[in-house]
Amino acid sequence: MNAYQPRTDDMQFVLSRVLNAPAQLQALPAFAEVDPGLMQQVLDEAGKFVGEVIAPLNRDGDEIGAQWKDGAVNMPPGFKDAYQAFWQSGWPALAASAEDGGQGLPSVLEAMLYEMLSAANHGWTMAPGLLHGAYECIKHHASDELKAQYLEKVATGEWLATMCLTEPHAGSDLGLARTKAVPLPDGNYAVSGTKIFISGGEHDLTDNIVHLVLARLPDAPPGPKGLSLFLVPKFYPDGSRSRVHCDRIEEKMGLHGSPTCVMRFDEAVCAIVGEPGKGLNAMFVMMNAARLHVALQGIGLLDAAWQKADAYAQERRQMRAPGKGKSAGEADLIGEHPAMRRILDTQRAWVDAGRVLAYRTALELDLIKHSQDADTQAAAQHWCALVTPVMKSVFTHQAFHGGSDCLQVFGGHGYVREWGIEQIVRDARVAMIYEGTNEIQAIDLLVRKVLADGGQSMNALLDTIAADLPHGAKASTAAQARIQTLRAVTEQIVKAAPQDAALAFRVADDYLRAVALVLMDWAWLRIEAGVDANTPNAAARWLAPAKALRSWVLPEFQMRTFIIVQQCTAAAA
Amino acid sequence: MNAYQPRTDDMQFVLSRVLNAPAQLQALPAFAEVDPGLMQQVLDEAGKFVGEVIAPLNRDGDEIGAQWKDGAVNMPPGFKDAYQAFWQSGWPALAASAEDGGQGLPSVLEAMLYEMLSAANHGWTMAPGLLHGAYECIKHHASDELKAQYLEKVATGEWLATMCLTEPHAGSDLGLARTKAVPLPDGNYAVSGTKIFISGGEHDLTDNIVHLVLARLPDAPPGPKGLSLFLVPKFYPDGSRSRVHCDRIEEKMGLHGSPTCVMRFDEAVCAIVGEPGKGLNAMFVMMNAARLHVALQGIGLLDAAWQKADAYAQERRQMRAPGKGKSAGEADLIGEHPAMRRILDTQRAWVDAGRVLAYRTALELDLIKHSQDADTQAAAQHWCALVTPVMKSVFTHQAFHGGSDCLQVFGGHGYVREWGIEQIVRDARVAMIYEGTNEIQAIDLLVRKVLADGGQSMNALLDTIAADLPHGAKASTAAQARIQTLRAVTEQIVKAAPQDAALAFRVADDYLRAVALVLMDWAWLRIEAGVDANTPNAAARWLAPAKALRSWVLPEFQMRTFIIVQQCTAAAA
Repeated sequence: MNAYQPRTDDMQFVLSRVLNAPAQLQALPAFAEVDPGLMQQVLDEAGKFVGEVIAPLNRDGDEIGAQWKDGAVNMPPGFKDAYQAFWQSGWPALAASAEDGGQGLPSVLEAMLYEMLSAANHGWTMAPGLLHGAYECIKHHASDELKAQYLEKVATGEWLATMCLTEPHAGSDLGLARTKAVPLPDGNYAVSGTKIFISGGEHDLTDNIVHLVLARLPDAPPGPKGLSLFLVPKFYPDGSRSRVHCDRIEEKMGLHGSPTCVMRFDEAVCAIVGEPGKGLNAMFVMMNAARLHVALQGIGLLDAAWQKADAYAQERRQMRAPGKGKSAGEADLIGEHPAMRRILDTQRAWVDAGRVLAYRTALELDLIKHSQDADTQAAAQHWCALVTPVMKSVFTHQAFHGGSDCLQVFGGHGYVREWGIEQIVRDARVAMIYEGTNEIQAIDLLVRKVLADGGQSMNALLDTIAADLPHGAKASTAAQARIQTLRAVTEQIVKAAPQDAALAFRVADDYLRAVALVLMDWAWLRIEAGVDANTPNAAARWLAPAKALRSWVLPEFQMRTFIIVQQCTAAAA
Repeated sequence: MNAYQPRTDDMQFVLSRVLNAPAQLQALPAFAEVDPGLMQQVLDEAGKFVGEVIAPLNRDGDEIGAQWKDGAVNMPPGFKDAYQAFWQSGWPALAASAEDGGQGLPSVLEAMLYEMLSAANHGWTMAPGLLHGAYECIKHHASDELKAQYLEKVATGEWLATMCLTEPHAGSDLGLARTKAVPLPDGNYAVSGTKIFISGGEHDLTDNIVHLVLARLPDAPPGPKGLSLFLVPKFYPDGSRSRVHCDRIEEKMGLHGSPTCVMRFDEAVCAIVGEPGKGLNAMFVMMNAARLHVALQGIGLLDAAWQKADAYAQERRQMRAPGKGKSAGEADLIGEHPAMRRILDTQRAWVDAGRVLAYRTALELDLIKHSQDADTQAAAQHWCALVTPVMKSVFTHQAFHGGSDCLQVFGGHGYVREWGIEQIVRDARVAMIYEGTNEIQAIDLLVRKVLADGGQSMNALLDTIAADLPHGAKASTAAQARIQTLRAVTEQIVKAAPQDAALAFRVADDYLRAVALVLMDWAWLRIEAGVDANTPNAAARWLAPAKALRSWVLPEFQMRTFIIVQQCTAAAA
């Protein structure tokens, strides 16, 4: 079993050659000092840390897993030491503000770090993965008193944090949540209720854990508008223990390195974060960042699966490949068999398109935060609003289904634990569910965003994409045609939706896939435009996946639009 | 967690109303006494046994699993008792000849039994699942002396059997196998070598285990033609132990109830089965039956996943479904949300199409064995040769990928062991690999069968299908058009293949999918023709999946044929 090794050269190629990110970032006053050399250095150090410290813990994370005993959770061997080294080296605070103890670097570097971490060890990465949302939430919504107590500890990752949203009967529908918060005479609150699926609800990685909990005040209305947000630490500033209990952890399909906790709040004393009734707003403000993070898990895990399959295909020989002579031993390399080559090049096409889209989106997040131009910020907001749910859905889908294709390259050996590929498939499955199921991403895209403005912002996004297609490339013509089709299909849904309330919900998945394919098409045209005579190994590394994309992936576009048109026609009839 | 319950009424509907099987079978002299009442009775008893005895053991099979210690394997709790009851009730011998201790019933009943067993407990079912091939192999190839010792024990299932094919360096390419067989002066042989991935290589279910082992005689040529078949029992007729050792069992993604053994043969004394150099022939003679069996695992597992998801969707409420009022409590049933309805109806469409195709294929196997008309037998052979690899591939693929869709219906609860749905997904994954990977099925179909006769037998199969489409149904017109397209695409590959040796290997998966969709289309038109005013719950049970097939599944056909045409055009250029 070969552990994942970050390939920062490939990542850097996308960042610099394809997206020209360093120049864009340096144009922002906040990053005037972030030169390409510094970015390279951060990436190299991140790659080294991930490859040497985090990746080797992945197997024990799965096989031994987090273990619950009497309300405490022991993390798998090595997890605590690795986490202590991680936060003490400043990694959690990479993109946090300097005033909060952070390093003030661009979000895109943080995105690349988390891609590598997820690829190396999805379970371990769950712990720090939740920090950033908690940091933003406390920073923007908590009182000064709470900030003084918690902000820097969370920004630096000295303490870890959770998001306590889900309840047994309230998953996708948080509005059904029943956890109660009762005001106390001293201005604090007492929270009571049970939260489930709380990643890192209890563990031994850090001295304290900060829980952000959605609950309902006594006079709150039913539904999502009745939810407020509260901060319950495991230990209060005076060192006393709060009334928060981890009743058990779930047995899961994978992700055994991350304890998924049932948390019981038993009149736990806490403070409110933000205004009463604005709990969901406070949490959903970092939704784009959180969903980008999950998309990066998908991209990272698929890359890890690809690395394993690629290595195996370069080593294992079975049967003659078609058109091969009898010169190379008893049999040919698996990688020379067309069916296996197709899997490898296709999954590579997904990973690299994923990087282009995810890094670009992280850059847009940097623009939202740091640009001083209102139009630039607005355009960046539109990009993130539309592209984020697409990425979250398709790259988590691909990590599981394409990861399974990579498993297939191993034949029977893929089904056996030894090679580590089946763990990736099991671990990856959860990302299709959490942070909003993939079906909810599709509804978010089509119903809440595209239909909400009659397709305007989607057409604006397509304008951006169309204008950015390389001139003269033959494949750009096909890409332009698909963009036109997508515009027409969008218009057709906008027109047909009023006749059938369920129509958009029925075709949301197809619509999201069609958008994803247009975006991937653009991404690969940009990649090819970045390849030149100096690009090492260009044919196998970049041109073969580009061809695979056009041969095997993009034809799905016409199927998706056909399905949508068929449904629109039926709705209009 | 609700255990799988066989729905023999639905299975019977396909068998009788759709396929008119009882009348077809009774027309054969061998089954003159097999009246519909008897078939119903066998099915009902099978359903009862599976539901009451086998299904409840599935969870422990996964969680406790088979355990290796010092060369012995302890099966999970209850497995042995259930197996003893199973063979003593005559189930393994259902379709075996009466002269060998069997019941002489049609293969189609055996197929239906194994669909239920696999759905209920894939791991347990692996043990008897290998009996039938071993029975046929011994019956048709072993010497009279061997038959006297082993045939009845294997026919009745009193002893279980294995197929020892794979070696560490020889998986899909058995021709690379190196296990040696040295002739002994007494006419026996001594076999030495290591075989891996041997399902049920060691266990405590039965008193003896019969291994059928591929090995190479000293003077044998390299490659597949140098392989002979040998029979090595765990215990010889005199009660002495053979030199066969189980060195370990694999840790796997799933299927923990079935020990996947590394078997070491250490000059194990044995007899040859069939002629030297004809080992693969002897094993591959039952390949169609074995692959049908694996297809039925896929169908059964997907049905089990569907049952769980359907039950959950009828119970769990989250959010308002589009177009619903506020009348039904705080939220609507998950099954009323279009995205979930789509998953459920689509997977139902796959399961029922699978049944039509698999039962029909089992009937063709019965015709091959028992028809007295040479043309009927030849047509049945063609059907099995072409349809079997298609079914093996698409229904095992669907069990995993569609099973994952069913998991998605549960949201986060699907990822947790408690509900049993994630086990189905893990268990199902292996069926895409064994008995010939799905990629090999596609190559078998397109390269070895379709191209081998220039598309003739495929066109004959399409003639059969086209002639059997219900007259007058509107959807029949679309089905006819797809059949015509498939003929044209077949011809195009036949013509382009000589220009590019890799072409057919590159598009084999797409071709297999296109054939599958044409077959499923036919299957559902036959189902709809079988629905009438007396069919209970026809709209939800049968018509909704038929609509789902046309809305969401069949559009893949045009994508697949587009991909193939694109490749053919490139090859011809």
